Amino acid sequence: MSSMTTRRPVVRRRAGTVSRRPDTLAVEEPLEIHVDGGPFTVTMRTPGHDVELALGFLLSEGVVRSPHHVRSVRHCPDAAVDADGRPTYNVVEVRLAPGVPPPNRSRARAVSSACGVCGAESVAAVRARCSTDLGHDTTGVDAAVLAGLPDRLRAAQRGFDRTGGLHAAGLFTAAGEPRCVREDVGRHNAVDKVVGWALQHDALPLAGHVLQVSGRASFELVQKAWLAGCPVLAAVSAPSSLAVDLAARAGLTLVGFSRGGSFNVYAGDGRIS
Amino acid sequence: MSSMTTRRPVVRRRAGTVSRRPDTLAVEEPLEIHVDGGPFTVTMRTPGHDVELALGFLLSEGVVRSPHHVRSVRHCPDAAVDADGRPTYNVVEVRLAPGVPPPNRSRARAVSSACGVCGAESVAAVRARCSTDLGHDTTGVDAAVLAGLPDRLRAAQRGFDRTGGLHAAGLFTAAGEPRCVREDVGRHNAVDKVVGWALQHDALPLAGHVLQVSGRASFELVQKAWLAGCPVLAAVSAPSSLAVDLAARAGLTLVGFSRGGSFNVYAGDGRIS
Repeated sequence: MSSMTTRRPVVRRRAGTVSRRPDTLAVEEPLEIHVDGGPFTVTMRTPGHDVELALGFLLSEGVVRSPHHVRSVRHCPDAAVDADGRPTYNVVEVRLAPGVPPPNRSRARAVSSACGVCGAESVAAVRARCSTDLGHDTTGVDAAVLAGLPDRLRAAQRGFDRTGGLHAAGLFTAAGEPRCVREDVGRHNAVDKVVGWALQHDALPLAGHVLQVSGRASFELVQKAWLAGCPVLAAVSAPSSLAVDLAARAGLTLVGFSRGGSFNVYAGDGRIS
Repeated sequence: MSSMTTRRPVVRRRAGTVSRRPDTLAVEEPLEIHVDGGPFTVTMRTPGHDVELALGFLLSEGVVRSPHHVRSVRHCPDAAVDADGRPTYNVVEVRLAPGVPPPNRSRARAVSSACGVCGAESVAAVRARCSTDLGHDTTGVDAAVLAGLPDRLRAAQRGFDRTGGLHAAGLFTAAGEPRCVREDVGRHNAVDKVVGWALQHDALPLAGHVLQVSGRASFELVQKAWLAGCPVLAAVSAPSSLAVDLAARAGLTLVGFSRGGSFNVYAGDGRIS
């Protein structure tokens, strides 16, 4: 099975000097997710926690909502082999539980998971799929705890220091205790892995938790947090306009530019003390 | 028509102090791309240069390869209106020239544009679609020019300083002169806008050019550079393993960690003097 990092030769050019040495890179490989025997999507991801990634992705797509919706999920070592005949472990097969409607394959990724031809429609489309109204969630988070999460996330990132090329998502309790940290070249994948972990552990909805991410907060990340029932999403970098609008609609607390002990609150400031 | 940035109220928390003020955010809105009358994909993007985005996306998907493949491309102001009845300008309609095969809609985004169940297959799949062998491209770039491109890109970014939330892609000549700089909340979109600009100006393939991007270099960005015939892709941050493998196969020069006057060369060092 592939590891998260690999080595490649690199030429370093620094102020007129040229040196050659091996460099550690984040691995990027395709993962094909099959549902009930047929291909559903392919995502470029960093190998590791592929089952969680598949489950988290299916939750974000509205295919499953609890571990009881999944009959089995496993790598298919026979489905793909490399040039030397070794399994690539790049195919994950999900079998849905009896009675769970199969996904509409023709729509898989055909459009963004929440589509619409204006931002307000996109927000409404997500609202229609989210049964959880986070506005009633009474989670409270101390400002000092929130401000410390980026450092806690960074401390738990095994791959970033070696590669500089991996995003991370971390699930923390409101007291700041880490429950699950995942890394991936794709920031959506990192969040899907965390959500998939929570689904596997029957920990959804994620009331009382904070999802801390290493990059920016887009519409899609707020959507994933909402679908997972997580009341607080904190990002090290900037949110987009539609991320803020969706968070406000969801009753979700959205924190951005969380760095150096300071942060901005774009929605749901009432949860922060 | 929407602008690239907007304002939202924000609560700033700094070392125990709390202040309220408006903050400038990058706009994120859906763009629906229609081809020959039917929806092809929806992407979340920052409004602006939507026609370029649509054309660059269709080039990356292998639907068009030259401006002669496009009969017309325009916003559809009638296709979508907001709650106040105003056009959202979130739908772009592309009409293909006679004889250009229509895209396979069921495959649109159903899988990554280059799919395969191992990295080597993904590389081979892109190779099969790229008619340009960049290995024969004789573009040479001075190391000092390359090292200066991140600052030139940043200087041309109108939105980043105000929001901290926009990626950028810039097309430069080998002498370091900017030809086109585009910003977007999505880094793939920023590259699609630049490539779409080049398609509109019949400037493909982009021999003799450098594509400088503000973030990381993924497999998909190398693929877009290759399809556009651009011999040099330089990123401010890290490349992934598969980005390096694809660049090596393409004969493309891949530069990473270009910052502070230094950079690493992961493939095609021969072009740099």
